[in-house]
Amino acid sequence: MAWAPWGCCLWLVLLCATAWSHSDAANLERTDVRNCSSSPPFLPVTAVNTTARIAALRQQIKAQNLSAYIIPDTDAHMSEYIGSQDDRRAWITGFTGTAGTAVVTMDKAALWTDSRYWTQAERQMDCNWELHRTGAIASWILAEIPAGGRVGFDPFLFSINSWQSYDVALQDSNIELVSITANLVDLVWGSERPLLPSQPVYALQKDFTGSTWQDKVADIRNQMQQHSKAPTAVLLSSLDETAWLFNLRSSDIPYNPFFYSYTLLTNNSIRLFANKSRFSPETLQYLNSSCTGAMCVQFEDYDQVRDSIQAYAQGDVRIWIGTSYTTYGLYEVIPEDKLVEDTYSPVMVTKAVKNSKEQALLKDTHVRDAVAVIRYLVWLEKNVPQGTVDEFSGAEFLEKLRGEEDYFSGSSFETISASGLNAALAHYSPSAEVHRKLSTDEMYLVDSGGQYWDGTTDITRTVHWGTPSAFQKETYTRVLMGNIDLSRLVFPASTSGRVVEAFARKALWDVGLNYGHGTGHGIGNFLCVHEWPVGFQSNNIAMAKGMFTSIEPGYYQDGEFGIRIEDVALVVEAQTKYPGTYLTFEVVTLVPYDRNLIDVNLLSPEQLQYVNRYYQTIRNKVGPELLRRQLQDEYEWLQRHTEPLAARAPHTSSVAYMVAACTVTILSWNS
Amino acid sequence: MAWAPWGCCLWLVLLCATAWSHSDAANLERTDVRNCSSSPPFLPVTAVNTTARIAALRQQIKAQNLSAYIIPDTDAHMSEYIGSQDDRRAWITGFTGTAGTAVVTMDKAALWTDSRYWTQAERQMDCNWELHRTGAIASWILAEIPAGGRVGFDPFLFSINSWQSYDVALQDSNIELVSITANLVDLVWGSERPLLPSQPVYALQKDFTGSTWQDKVADIRNQMQQHSKAPTAVLLSSLDETAWLFNLRSSDIPYNPFFYSYTLLTNNSIRLFANKSRFSPETLQYLNSSCTGAMCVQFEDYDQVRDSIQAYAQGDVRIWIGTSYTTYGLYEVIPEDKLVEDTYSPVMVTKAVKNSKEQALLKDTHVRDAVAVIRYLVWLEKNVPQGTVDEFSGAEFLEKLRGEEDYFSGSSFETISASGLNAALAHYSPSAEVHRKLSTDEMYLVDSGGQYWDGTTDITRTVHWGTPSAFQKETYTRVLMGNIDLSRLVFPASTSGRVVEAFARKALWDVGLNYGHGTGHGIGNFLCVHEWPVGFQSNNIAMAKGMFTSIEPGYYQDGEFGIRIEDVALVVEAQTKYPGTYLTFEVVTLVPYDRNLIDVNLLSPEQLQYVNRYYQTIRNKVGPELLRRQLQDEYEWLQRHTEPLAARAPHTSSVAYMVAACTVTILSWNS
Repeated sequence: MAWAPWGCCLWLVLLCATAWSHSDAANLERTDVRNCSSSPPFLPVTAVNTTARIAALRQQIKAQNLSAYIIPDTDAHMSEYIGSQDDRRAWITGFTGTAGTAVVTMDKAALWTDSRYWTQAERQMDCNWELHRTGAIASWILAEIPAGGRVGFDPFLFSINSWQSYDVALQDSNIELVSITANLVDLVWGSERPLLPSQPVYALQKDFTGSTWQDKVADIRNQMQQHSKAPTAVLLSSLDETAWLFNLRSSDIPYNPFFYSYTLLTNNSIRLFANKSRFSPETLQYLNSSCTGAMCVQFEDYDQVRDSIQAYAQGDVRIWIGTSYTTYGLYEVIPEDKLVEDTYSPVMVTKAVKNSKEQALLKDTHVRDAVAVIRYLVWLEKNVPQGTVDEFSGAEFLEKLRGEEDYFSGSSFETISASGLNAALAHYSPSAEVHRKLSTDEMYLVDSGGQYWDGTTDITRTVHWGTPSAFQKETYTRVLMGNIDLSRLVFPASTSGRVVEAFARKALWDVGLNYGHGTGHGIGNFLCVHEWPVGFQSNNIAMAKGMFTSIEPGYYQDGEFGIRIEDVALVVEAQTKYPGTYLTFEVVTLVPYDRNLIDVNLLSPEQLQYVNRYYQTIRNKVGPELLRRQLQDEYEWLQRHTEPLAARAPHTSSVAYMVAACTVTILSWNS
Repeated sequence: MAWAPWGCCLWLVLLCATAWSHSDAANLERTDVRNCSSSPPFLPVTAVNTTARIAALRQQIKAQNLSAYIIPDTDAHMSEYIGSQDDRRAWITGFTGTAGTAVVTMDKAALWTDSRYWTQAERQMDCNWELHRTGAIASWILAEIPAGGRVGFDPFLFSINSWQSYDVALQDSNIELVSITANLVDLVWGSERPLLPSQPVYALQKDFTGSTWQDKVADIRNQMQQHSKAPTAVLLSSLDETAWLFNLRSSDIPYNPFFYSYTLLTNNSIRLFANKSRFSPETLQYLNSSCTGAMCVQFEDYDQVRDSIQAYAQGDVRIWIGTSYTTYGLYEVIPEDKLVEDTYSPVMVTKAVKNSKEQALLKDTHVRDAVAVIRYLVWLEKNVPQGTVDEFSGAEFLEKLRGEEDYFSGSSFETISASGLNAALAHYSPSAEVHRKLSTDEMYLVDSGGQYWDGTTDITRTVHWGTPSAFQKETYTRVLMGNIDLSRLVFPASTSGRVVEAFARKALWDVGLNYGHGTGHGIGNFLCVHEWPVGFQSNNIAMAKGMFTSIEPGYYQDGEFGIRIEDVALVVEAQTKYPGTYLTFEVVTLVPYDRNLIDVNLLSPEQLQYVNRYYQTIRNKVGPELLRRQLQDEYEWLQRHTEPLAARAPHTSSVAYMVAACTVTILSWNS
């Protein structure tokens, strides 16, 4: 899981609409959160003194003749995770949560964040800051800024959509939105600001790529020619677009093996905006960078991108962009009639469908990842009863185990290792300071993934080593039923994920339960763990053979426990009784579910059959790998945990029905 | 069924995207269709000579200094059905199908229609007309009309969306779209044009209304006050909006009990644009029409609406409109900053949720409607084997039976009475001339509905009186399974229909089958049989308690047979094991499904239980009514056809599984 691609822009709406309800406990008498209404104000030790920072920023705001300045939480590529040098909102506010926007006026400073982060914000912010739990930022600006006021923003930190929404909100107000390319927070951050990354950018080995960058370039150019509006260039703003196109990787962004870059791929040139000094002579040669032909990669300075695009846009050109993640900083320098706008660029859409080699690579990754996760589950089973494991040490050990797998290159996101009530918190991750001990009395949820040279993984398993309550078993089983029902669904080609995601919820809905997050997202080959535009949300594209998506229903009992069962699945052709182009999912995650939490009586015969077939697949694929590695304990654990499940009673849970059905069956045999 | 509300605008996209595949047989040697490439051209007897009409229209086009004129198939209210005086496209082309747009230039005349109507168009049009099976009209205009050309249209026949799509398509072309309020076809149609309706407009009896018009007006005004943009008026363009608001009815439109009208409901006045001479003194009194206060209905001439709205829009006002069905003819006279735009007006949204009295009325209607349909099914069962019934005479007899029910006021749409292969054709209806005999060798589909003073009905049943094939039984049963699975679904409040409609398809998808139309639509209280904005499409609003929707999966085997099982259901609160605000459906249609076509072995125990409970409901509600009416044959038929269904084998269709399950069950009892 861990949802928040492309900053807040696309996701906040969904997240806010579906946020886990999370009541904020009364702050009275608490010493862990600030109390700005006491006299003198009370600040916890975790609060950051931002007085000087705000004062310095206000000088810049004044110098620009502005009334306010907006500080979002994203970077110039609408990245899901951002580098520390881009975490301007955290620096200016003190609040380090991954979602939130700040606005500073000459007399006020305000932060908006969603319910997941309210307590954290009260712990980290001093009393310079208002915390806004609800309400639109633009409405606040309208109330605070007098007519004639100017509100500044960094256009590279605004998606086209977020700029448009501010623009619409302020349009009748006589308040001006002012695009300022020099970031004002950076100007005051100064030498404290972390340095930009400088580690090498490297080419992936051929074994780990689905096709050469030259083939990819030719394919995208072909799509440009086919397009009715005949774009002359594609502009790539998202970091994974450039990484994918050239089969290049680095580590500028936490959890994402990317490097800061843009690409302008025209019909007769390839212009890569990046720091050339980070490329070795071999990599430069690999990119054919010493020439200027159609298949030569010409370097330009990363900071030149806006000027270069603006200059290119003067010609008789049409620039194809993905509007979901291109920033206003580039959008505003391209005249409207030179734009070819699609929600996603052709690179984004092409990347979503993995070719057969990429599919094989991702499947191989998942076998090794299963070994690491199974080793972790076995280790937990042995050590949790000793009382020696906590959420944080567990997560660290899991990363160590993944690190022993071939081609491992770091986690694909911050591990959610959550015991008991912590698992009911969205986006909870333990820290060295704050964590909970794992216990046989509680359920434990671990959502984690790895980056490997051949693929990216993301898996959630929820376990209980003691005696779960009947409610825990029921909810776990219903989450599993949802996972199964969606995984085994047969659906027509080109069906949108949003049309079928309710199958993952039905077993919960049946009894009045639900979960408040999305049901799945695409995933890359050593790229984003949340790879757009695949998934089950309304802004995802239709399912097609060769796509990978996670399937991850859950259930969260506030203050008690949380359940999520997440697998990654490949979209494959379904074999149907009558001929037709139908699709289904092939689950490539290969770790058994917790038998201790499954109430087999709730499962239908089809669901049971599905799980047992899945378990056989796990045995076939992971068993030999465990033996090869001489992981005998793990092999035996796997055998035990993949024993076929059998119903003890019919799935109607109505014994009376079963008796009737048996009787009818026997009678019909006799007749 | 019978989909096509608000002209083609909203629906054509959906219909085209999902049109039944329907191959057009080779026209060689056929005498029922035109052949414009033979010399001389061959015209069937059904072709209409349009030479003089087109010549006269071209004079008007020339007089207006136009290059082309667009003739849509709708009326000024984007009505689903249109009066004959509005069927300009049919008159100018000769083609009477219910979907199609014509364009006439100085040297060409072209018609666009979808695959359902290609053969009909080839039968009815002469060789003045090009038939366009594919392609966008705007693209054709761009190719045909030189730069500087002017393309005329009647703005009252264009929705805002359709105007925008033409506007966008032509925007870089130097071709001008010219709005002309005097309809050019009407000018040449002259005295041949049918007269406007003049029958009385009447108020519904109090027994048949959910609330008074005064209460409705107060409610809508309250919503105006609550709205963040504080509209000063609501403009009602759709005929059912005005009919609903005032509890008024007439019969201007086939199948719809409406009268031509607009309403401008302001915060201090009520302005009804209609032909006042059609209102009796009592009705005028009922409307409080002799005063000018906030609760007085002031009449204005129907044709004055554009001028009046334009005049009103000069003031300090904001006019709230439903953009889905307001025409460009009104939209263009309201300045942008005076518009409050929502997809649906508050009247449309309020009308969608029936209050308890309206719910009771609609349920009562369905009991009487069931009596008529059951009488028809009993009559068919007796008469079809005699070979004396055809599709047309059957449909006529069904209407006669409905006519014997209290409060009947005509059919709610043209009955689809289709035997054998005809049932696989979308929108097929028999005529006195063209129809098929009903037979015990074929399946028969009847989709029909009635308008009653207390409610509107819509039901489809598919039957077979002989021996259906295994494939027919399987497909019928799978359609039924889809109907059941959606009808019994429990889902969270505010879920959109599009998110759950796949449950109606899953049983078909499982074996590689599907259907190419929507799954349901709202329905009114003596209003539209296809009432927006309720339903399962992407442009429908979220489900709420008190809404009624049809649920109507189907399966169509081209050239062989067609199946649809359609019920109307009320959205009700679901009782769930754990507390929560969940909804489900209560089916109010009360006619049993054809047992002869049900393969009970395919049904799950839950599905069987559901059907048997539904059958018990039918017995309880319709049985007494049949007895009261001394319809003994029908009562006995009902008892036979609602006998509980029983599985003969477990629903897995795996006897082996059943044996195992029985064994395990028995063993577990013993242990």
